[in-house]
Order: sequence, then structure tokens, then C-alpha cells
Amino acid sequence: MIKVGIVGGTGYTGVELLRLLSVHSQVELKAITSRSNLGTKVSDIFSSLRGYADIEFSHPDDPNLAQCDLVFFATPSAIAMNQVPDLLKAGVKVIDLAADFRIKDIKVWEKWYGAKHTCPEIVEQAVYGLPEMNRKAIKSAQIVANPGCYPTAVTLGLLPLLKSNLIEEKDIIADCKSGVSGAGRKANVTTLLCESSESVKAYGVSGHRHLPEITQNLQQIRAQSKLVFVPHLMPMVRGIHATVYASVKDNSVDFIQHFKDFYQNEPFVDVLDEGQTPETRSVKGANYCRIGIQYLPDSNKVVVMSVIDNLVKGAAGQAVQNMNLMFGLNENEGLDNPGLML
Amino acid sequence: MIKVGIVGGTGYTGVELLRLLSVHSQVELKAITSRSNLGTKVSDIFSSLRGYADIEFSHPDDPNLAQCDLVFFATPSAIAMNQVPDLLKAGVKVIDLAADFRIKDIKVWEKWYGAKHTCPEIVEQAVYGLPEMNRKAIKSAQIVANPGCYPTAVTLGLLPLLKSNLIEEKDIIADCKSGVSGAGRKANVTTLLCESSESVKAYGVSGHRHLPEITQNLQQIRAQSKLVFVPHLMPMVRGIHATVYASVKDNSVDFIQHFKDFYQNEPFVDVLDEGQTPETRSVKGANYCRIGIQYLPDSNKVVVMSVIDNLVKGAAGQAVQNMNLMFGLNENEGLDNPGLML
Amino acid sequence: MIKVGIVGGTGYTGVELLRLLSVHSQVELKAITSRSNLGTKVSDIFSSLRGYADIEFSHPDDPNLAQCDLVFFATPSAIAMNQVPDLLKAGVKVIDLAADFRIKDIKVWEKWYGAKHTCPEIVEQAVYGLPEMNRKAIKSAQIVANPGCYPTAVTLGLLPLLKSNLIEEKDIIADCKSGVSGAGRKANVTTLLCESSESVKAYGVSGHRHLPEITQNLQQIRAQSKLVFVPHLMPMVRGIHATVYASVKDNSVDFIQHFKDFYQNEPFVDVLDEGQTPETRSVKGANYCRIGIQYLPDSNKVVVMSVIDNLVKGAAGQAVQNMNLMFGLNENEGLDNPGLML
Amino acid sequence: MIKVGIVGGTGYTGVELLRLLSVHSQVELKAITSRSNLGTKVSDIFSSLRGYADIEFSHPDDPNLAQCDLVFFATPSAIAMNQVPDLLKAGVKVIDLAADFRIKDIKVWEKWYGAKHTCPEIVEQAVYGLPEMNRKAIKSAQIVANPGCYPTAVTLGLLPLLKSNLIEEKDIIADCKSGVSGAGRKANVTTLLCESSESVKAYGVSGHRHLPEITQNLQQIRAQSKLVFVPHLMPMVRGIHATVYASVKDNSVDFIQHFKDFYQNEPFVDVLDEGQTPETRSVKGANYCRIGIQYLPDSNKVVVMSVIDNLVKGAAGQAVQNMNLMFGLNENEGLDNPGLML
Repeated sequence: MIKVGIVGGTGYTGVELLRLLSVHSQVELKAITSRSNLGTKVSDIFSSLRGYADIEFSHPDDPNLAQCDLVFFATPSAIAMNQVPDLLKAGVKVIDLAADFRIKDIKVWEKWYGAKHTCPEIVEQAVYGLPEMNRKAIKSAQIVANPGCYPTAVTLGLLPLLKSNLIEEKDIIADCKSGVSGAGRKANVTTLLCESSESVKAYGVSGHRHLPEITQNLQQIRAQSKLVFVPHLMPMVRGIHATVYASVKDNSVDFIQHFKDFYQNEPFVDVLDEGQTPETRSVKGANYCRIGIQYLPDSNKVVVMSVIDNLVKGAAGQAVQNMNLMFGLNENEGLDNPGLML
Repeated sequence: MIKVGIVGGTGYTGVELLRLLSVHSQVELKAITSRSNLGTKVSDIFSSLRGYADIEFSHPDDPNLAQCDLVFFATPSAIAMNQVPDLLKAGVKVIDLAADFRIKDIKVWEKWYGAKHTCPEIVEQAVYGLPEMNRKAIKSAQIVANPGCYPTAVTLGLLPLLKSNLIEEKDIIADCKSGVSGAGRKANVTTLLCESSESVKAYGVSGHRHLPEITQNLQQIRAQSKLVFVPHLMPMVRGIHATVYASVKDNSVDFIQHFKDFYQNEPFVDVLDEGQTPETRSVKGANYCRIGIQYLPDSNKVVVMSVIDNLVKGAAGQAVQNMNLMFGLNENEGLDNPGLML
Repeated sequence: MIKVGIVGGTGYTGVELLRLLSVHSQVELKAITSRSNLGTKVSDIFSSLRGYADIEFSHPDDPNLAQCDLVFFATPSAIAMNQVPDLLKAGVKVIDLAADFRIKDIKVWEKWYGAKHTCPEIVEQAVYGLPEMNRKAIKSAQIVANPGCYPTAVTLGLLPLLKSNLIEEKDIIADCKSGVSGAGRKANVTTLLCESSESVKAYGVSGHRHLPEITQNLQQIRAQSKLVFVPHLMPMVRGIHATVYASVKDNSVDFIQHFKDFYQNEPFVDVLDEGQTPETRSVKGANYCRIGIQYLPDSNKVVVMSVIDNLVKGAAGQAVQNMNLMFGLNENEGLDNPGLML
Repeated sequence: MIKVGIVGGTGYTGVELLRLLSVHSQVELKAITSRSNLGTKVSDIFSSLRGYADIEFSHPDDPNLAQCDLVFFATPSAIAMNQVPDLLKAGVKVIDLAADFRIKDIKVWEKWYGAKHTCPEIVEQAVYGLPEMNRKAIKSAQIVANPGCYPTAVTLGLLPLLKSNLIEEKDIIADCKSGVSGAGRKANVTTLLCESSESVKAYGVSGHRHLPEITQNLQQIRAQSKLVFVPHLMPMVRGIHATVYASVKDNSVDFIQHFKDFYQNEPFVDVLDEGQTPETRSVKGANYCRIGIQYLPDSNKVVVMSVIDNLVKGAAGQAVQNMNLMFGLNENEGLDNPGLML
């Protein structure tokens, strides 16, 4: 059994992680910390976990963390970097679900996250936890930077195209739609039901923190990649739908077949057939990324539609997938279930 | 492995059953029938099941059904009764998720369901599949009548009170709220998103098919039981919240403790503590019934709040629980997971 | 033109009042105050009001208030009482949408609202602003206590029954369902979209502030009236559905006809016909209370279903109706429009 | 008073038209037809209209139509063309809310709408009813083709850019999001609450009927205009959000100021300030198009966000605006009200 700790377990990625770990056959939860809920039972806050996570929240400095095999950080960004170095020294493995170790260029990170980074050397060491790009490195990593939700959906939608040099990489548009849970479990007028239901709006149009992360992913494959990224808030809880537009270099390609071939061995990427479009609900609560592709002859563009559950493949589920890889388990252990379509 | 067939697998209880069975370790799906979707792959209709249920719908007369150990009927009411007798003769066990075998008084059934019953003798033989009432009988049953959703929520909320004679059984009020999935997957203006979101209304106020079923349950315990039952449609997909009001016979009782004692060995009934009220989302996708109790000294009434997921404990999950009992498996096999709270 | 001021215009009742007043032909908005949004344009917070309410929020002590003909308080409870006495002395009329002047028994008010009342003499003077009960007194009132949302729905559903002594007044049950906007525009985890959509729960079961208000209304008609009142939170923005259960004293009455007769001259109460049940969406954005009635012979009970928009007939619309009465205008001025059904 | 008839008043555009006309000071409803609801009172189907539209549905051949000054067609496409010629001959004015008279190229229309057009000569005569493009022609038109919802949102978002030749017109992308009411009031599994809430999906990706309509609009301004148009279904009732991406020809332009100047005399187009993004809920129930603009220097692209209520500015409200123009009324008569933001 892997001894696991969670730092910051009261947000939506935290509770989702608890939900997934509570049915994982190889995990034992040793500690979960929360400054604000010290001493409270996890299941008193999330009643769905009654009988599954009756452990109490402990202090962020809980010494049990250093006894764990693995510690997940489900904290806001710019928190983990303060605690991670000591854990690594103690031999603990770490998966950070926040952004502290995702961006290799420290200056870029500091600009977007408005903080001074306290351990750039660990950023260098960290592996970006997108298994479809970095499976091998993840297996031997001590620290994994778990990808953001938008970057996961967009990158998986573009990987097969960029790797095979099929699109104009300098002129990509990603119009993304996200459920409100992406904004986290903070008391906040904007995400009240009365403010965010029955409405759609764009946000972060002039610049969003996930843009440099996506760009870094794409440029690893093709150095000139450039992206316009506009996220929109949808009146729903879970789900991301990325609609990606790109001009095609070679229109003789069968794009659907190309995607199917590219992802044929991936346990969590599902490519749809001709004429099918993915629905976010088809992956609700599940770790899948489901992708539909449409080539438009009139404009010579390809439209890729990539959907994930932002809390699962876009956060906690991908973290469990990474854990499975880091500890040599079956990659789909604890994740092999269909979505709750309705 | 238990060889299982499903008749009528395209409705919401059918797809929920598929979701649950697809992760059940002891089940092999041999046949699923649908007159209207003959030859279509299940996963082409429910994309969440891609990779989990790629079997094709066959004809309702599929001879494979008779080769199964167990056949579930997820059909509309008054269908199963035509097919069940032959299956029973062939030695197949049956769980009917519709209402054909729930009401022991055939005249009552015929009045509420508007049809002549074709096999009253099997109604007599059928066991009402509420494990908290009839566990022992279910274990040896060949045919189980899986309870309705409202009856499950209301009966579990009243069982401890009636069994111990703690309330005035002749004057019970059950004000019930249900998500729209209870209306099924029928093309129908009333349950369009545009008609049923952002609104609440009562329905079936003068009489609802679940009233005789609930009454039968209550009268088995106390013969004089009488109920006012008003269901309401909620702007959401899943969940039932039954709010039950009754006058108290003995106000010296600690009602919460009484419920906790009564249900202490039940794997799927969870009684909340003083001051806690259950939320339907806490059981979303899970097989639990979660109950809160409040005694009101001013009026000497007890208010019981009982929540279930109408598609799980109120339908497909309870059917799996019954299957587990009928085949000597662990009762919570395939059902041991927390709800998808958000 | 009536010169109008609003104190506390940033909550949901405040913005709804602005929406209604912005199309009222007889009103000129002279001042709107908000401590937290001082200097901000109203339409910068509520973009729907761009071009309709481009006035800036001023300080709560804005001297313009004393120059108004009428000041609305759309503040939290226990605020208006501090400012109202001076305004009344200055000859200004006042409508308080909060609870400061609703409860005649000061001790009861102080218990439920957790504050010492600063002007009990004005409570005595204040008229409870339910036109269907107190139209005449409202017309000549200087200060009107605008009713709460639940009290409006429940009282209008019971008035015809109690006035004619048709039900057992000591044993009334009101099971109420409300949209989330009733909780106000406060940053608050409980009413985030992710916490309150796709779920139903009861709250305030052991006691809710609106209970003494409803009881006071009912006891004015029949002194022995007693009520069990359980509010529930619905996954929607607007709307209250009160389902009221009572035992019938005289079952020879045609209840629907009785309600129709009783309310025949009321411009904002609409009684449905036999077999019809009201939907909250039918009054969305409108000032109507729509009522359905069902007599149940088996239990000799009557079920009254009463729906309002909690922000309109349950708050801002009723306040405008009261204003119209206080200033001798047509009672339905600015309120004569159908709901936004979808 | 203008005598008005409505053909096909049971869909969502029909009921919205009824809602708007019921509070219009210059209109008298003389006839409303519906084959399927012959003899039923309008308000028995739409209870929000009780007291506002108690007229009965008559037969589609109702002779009263020919006595009207104006007849609205709120029918599915390919219906109006059969009835319009006779009405025009009788001197009646017509506004068709469907698509029969929108596309000037009959072959294109016949391809996309799958029917033979029965009166091409009337298509020629018809004026496309987008007041911001064709106000003068609308004023003297006998027949107006009321624009589609997506075409309205997209065209208004592009008009100022194309007119002044500020963008590369051959490479425009319009990623559009619509509420479910756009699909109409048809019994249909896809738009059930259980199928379309809590999910986002693209549809019509390979081609949508509104594409030729938008293209026709754009090409009237710049002949080489070409568009990629992908509509998405949002889990909400009302609202369209068009996100339009285009490469900029001249980046010295202040785009926001340009839009403000362009639309300065338009009563129903509202251009937001720097950094503001429009929300669909800000126009819910209102006839406004609200537009936000963001220039992105890194990619030299402009992003235009244009929101409307698909049932109002995208259908019934625009039809009333057109009626006002055709009959010499104030253009905003009956339409001068803010949205129901929540």
C-alpha cells in the first residue's frame, strides 16, 4: 500500500482526489491538511465521503507528511514551492496539482503568477505530468507537475497534428469552454449560482495563466507554435470543451485515422468516428479525453474538439494516473470507470 | 461470472444499470435488447460507455436471454409481465425494475397501471426488493420486484418510526422532490431543458402510481397507515428528496439515535447527526440513502428527510444490490463508491 | 414624478427594484447608496442596467435621501431601523424590504434577528405591506414593512381558507421550495453554482426567521393558527413554491371556486382551474402569485400550491405595488407584464 | 392600433412574440393559428400569459389573417412561402421569423433547406430585417425576412470591422455558443433536460444552415468574405455568445472607439469599454446586442464577443423592432426594457 498525504484538501481538486483515492486499491491515506479546517472530519465538509474519508484535517506542518511515500499538493498556486524541497529531501515523492512546477522559464512563471519562485532548481527537476507526452519520464520522476485543465484538453487535441507537422503552427486558435468548478471552491460573488447559471461569458481574454503553459507544450513539439486562447465560463459544474482551429498543411491526410493511430495505445484518449462530436458529459467523473475531428474543405481548416472533465483528466484523475506510473502500478488502477453521463 | 441479460436498455435506468454492471467484477453481459435500436452499439447511443459496453442491441426475443443466469427488465411498466413467465420456466432469475410485480393486490395494480395483468400468480411469488425490509426473502427469490424511486426514499424514512410505533400512522405527509430523470428518456415537451429548468411544480397531486406502492409498504408494518403524497419536479437531473411529516406518539424518544440503531447494519443507509440535513448531491451516482431527522417540539412532529439518487438506490443500484443478494455475493459488490458530489 | 431613493442597492432585491423602477413611468431615482461600491456606476456592477441606471452609488448618509418622497431599504435586516426615524421625521415615506418592521412583538423580533431593536415605536406605526390583507392601511401609511418571500407565498395560499374557517388552523404544514437568489448576493461557499446546482436540501428545519412572520399573519385571522414550516433550497435562481397541507373542516366547499371568489378583485393573484398546478417559471420576473388547489378526499386534506417570484411578488415587485398604493397611482403601474416563462 | 396575426404561435419564438406584443401599446392581436392546438387558449399552454393572451388558436387558414395589417410567421422553415403570396396580394405586410426569404440565391436556399422554393420572386422583394444594415429599406418593405439568431450576433460583431476594411475578410472564425431554446419547442430526446444540462457540445460542424446566411451578410460588405462557423450547445435556455476571431489589417486602430462610433445611434447595440466582456444574461429577455472587443498584439488578432438573447434580438424582439420601423412607430416601442439579469 502506498502511503499518501494530501496538502490542501478542501478545494474541488482536493475532494475529487479524495473521491478517487477512496476507491483505489493500493492507497492508504495517512494525512490530509487544511489550515482553515483543522480538526474537522473530511466527511463533515463533503458528506458524500461519509464512510470513505472520515480522517480529520491536520495542520499543514503535519509531520506525517514526511512519512508518506507520496504527497499531493491540491493547494492554490505558489504554496507548494515552500514545502516541497523538504519533502523531496526526506525521500517523499510529490505530485503538485497547482502550477508551481509547470513552467520551465522561471521569469515567465513569476510574471503570470505574481510571486518570486523559491526553488527554481526543483522546477528544472520536475516532470510535466502529461502521460501522453512524458510517460517514460513520469515513471522515474520524484516530482511531477500535474498539468492544468485547459492545457490538458488543448495539448491532447493538437499533439497528433503538431508531431506530424500537419498544421500551420503559428496560427492556432483555441476557443475553450469550462464549467464553473475550474474557478475553485472560494466564496466569491462571480461564481454564485445566481451569477453564473443561465449565462455564458469569456474571461481572461487579454491573457490567461494557462496560455504560457499550453504554449510551452506546443513549442516543445514545434518551436514556432503560437496560440490564441480564449476561455469561456459555462453554466455547469464540470467539463472542458476545447474547440481548436488550425489551417492544414496537407489536406490529403485522413485526420481521424491519424488521431486513432496516434492514440491507439493510450488508455485514456478516445478518438471518435467521422461525424461524431464529443460531449463533456460523456467524461463526467471519468479520466478520459474524448476527441472529435472535422476537416473543413472550404476553408482548408481542421477543427478539433477535445473534451475532458476538468476535475479528473484535468486535475485529480491525471494525478492518480501519474501516481500509478510513478509507483509501477497499472496505469488505469482506480480510474477504470465510465463517466456519469447524466 | 453471472451471465446477465437486459431487456429494454435504452432508458435512463437501463443505461445506469449498464454503467454499474460494466464495473462489476462478477458479471458478464450476454444480451441487451431494444426494439427501436436493434443492431446499434450501446456505446453509439451512450458515448460514456465507449470501451465499456460495445455490445449491440438485439431483438426483444433474443434467445440468449433464456441462457442467462439473470435478466433485468428496464422496460416501461406492463411489458415485463409478458416475457417473465417463460424466463422463469427456463430457470432464469429475474429482476424487474418496472412496476409489474410490485403491487400484490392485482385490482389495485390494474387500476393504476391501466392494463390487465397477465400473470397474477407470479406477482404472488415475487419478492419486493427492498433489502432493508426483505433481505432474507430476496436471497432466495427467483423473481424480485425492484422498488420505485419514491417508495424507496419514503419507506426507508418511515420504517424505523412505524416498526417501533412512534408516530400517528394515519396522518403522514410525504412531500417529495425529484429530478427530471425520473420521467425517463422519452421525447416529450414537458421535460425539455427549456420547460423544466429554472422551475418547480407539483404533479400527480390528485394521485400518483407510487402512492399504492408506498401505502402497501407502510401497511405491511402498520395496517392503518395512510399517506398524503405529493411529488414535485425539480430543475435537475438526478436525486429524490423526500420530506416526511408525522405526529409523534412518544416524544421521549431520541429519534436520531433510534434511526442509527435501526440501520446500524445496513450498508447503504446513512443516518446523519443532530442538525445535519441531507443533500441529494451527496448520493449522486451512489447507492446510498442518507437520512436526516428533526423533532419539532412546538408541533410535536418529526420531520424526516430522506435522499437517494433515483437512478441508483431508486432503480439500477438497488437492482444490483438485489442481484448481489440473490447470487450470494457481497451485498456491496460493484456499489462501494462515494457519490459524485459535484 | 415621485422622487425615490434606495439604500443598499447592490443585493438581489436592490437590483430587481432598479429593474422595475427603471421602467416605471412615475418614478425618478434621486439617490442610491452603497457603502462598498461608493462612486461606482450601478450599471458597472449590473451590466443589464446600462442605459437604465447609470447613476453612481453614494454614501449611506447621502443627504439627498431626505429630499426624496420615498426611500426603499434593500439592506440586510437590522440596518434600516437606524436610519428610518430621521427620514420619517423629514417627512419621507419609507418601504423597508428587510424585516425590521415586520414583527409587532419586539421580543420575538429580537430573538430571531439577534439584535436590540432601536425604534419599537415605529414598528407599531408600520403597516405590513401585503396588499391582499392590508390594502387600505397601506394607502395611508408613512412606513410599510414589505413582507418576506415565504410569508407572501404561504399567507396568500392560506388567507381564503382561514378567513372562512375552512381548515384545522392548529395543524398546518408548509413545505416550501426556494431558488437560491433568496440567499442574497453574498460571497458564500454554500450558494456557489458548484454547491447548489443539481441538488436539493432542506435548511432551517429547526426554525427559520420567516416562521414568526407567517405565524403572525395567520394568527391575525385565526388566533390559534400553528404552522410547521420547512424551507428547501432548489437548484435554480428565482421562484418560490409553497406546498401547504391542511385538514378540512367542511368538505362540501368547492375550494377552487372559493379561492376564485376571494381573489376576484386582486390584480396580482391568479387562481388556477381544476387539475392545473402552478409552475414557478410562469411568474418569473412578474409580480403574480399563482395558486393551484387540490382537495384529497381520502385524507380529507386540502393541498394549496402557491408560487411567486421571490424577488418580485416576494420582494421588489411587492414594494413597487405598495409604492403605487401609497402614492395613489394605479396599483399595477410598472408591474403589468407577464413572466419570462423560459 | 395595428391589427396583427401570428401563424404558428406555439414554438418558442411564437410565445416570445406574444410576450412582447402583449405589452406593446400599438398592437391588437386579431388571430393566432396553430394546427395542433386548434381551439385551445394560448394561456392554457403558456400559463405565464394568463390574462395577457387568452385568445384561442385558430386554423392556419383563418380568414382573419387577411384582415390584419401585419402577419408574423413563427413557423418552421419552408412553411411561410406557401401562405405569404396570398397575404401580400391582400395588402397585408409580413414578417417571416423563419428562413424562407433570407437567402437571395434560391439554389443555395434549396440546398440547405431541402425543399423547392415556391415563390422566388418574393425572395427578391423581401428585405433582410437587420435594422443596423437595412433600416431604410425595412421602413418601406412589405415583406421582411427576420434574421436568424447566429447571423444577427455574428453580423453585428463584424459589421464595423468589414465596413472599414480593418480585417482579413477571407479568414474569419466564429465560434458560437447557444442556449437550448434555439432548438425549438419540439419533443426530442437531444434537448431533454437530462441530455443537455451539465454538458457542452459542438454540432453542425461540417455545415449549418446559418452559414450561408452569415456569409451572404458579410459578402454584401466585402465580396471575398469567408467564415468558419462552429455552433455549440450550452446548458442553458436563452442566449447566444459569438466569439469572432480575425486578423487585423491595421493595428493602429482603437477598435473599441471604432465600434462605439459606428454604433453610436443604434438603440439596441451596446459597445462595452476596455477590459469588459459581455455576459449573455445581461440581455436576457431584452432586445440588446452587447459587444466586447479585445485586440491581441501577440497574434495581431481582434476578438469580438457579441451576445444577444436568441429569442429576442435573435428572433421575436428583432421582429417587433422591424414592425415598429415598417409602421412608422418609435423603433423601441415595446422593447425599451433592461434584461432580467438573474
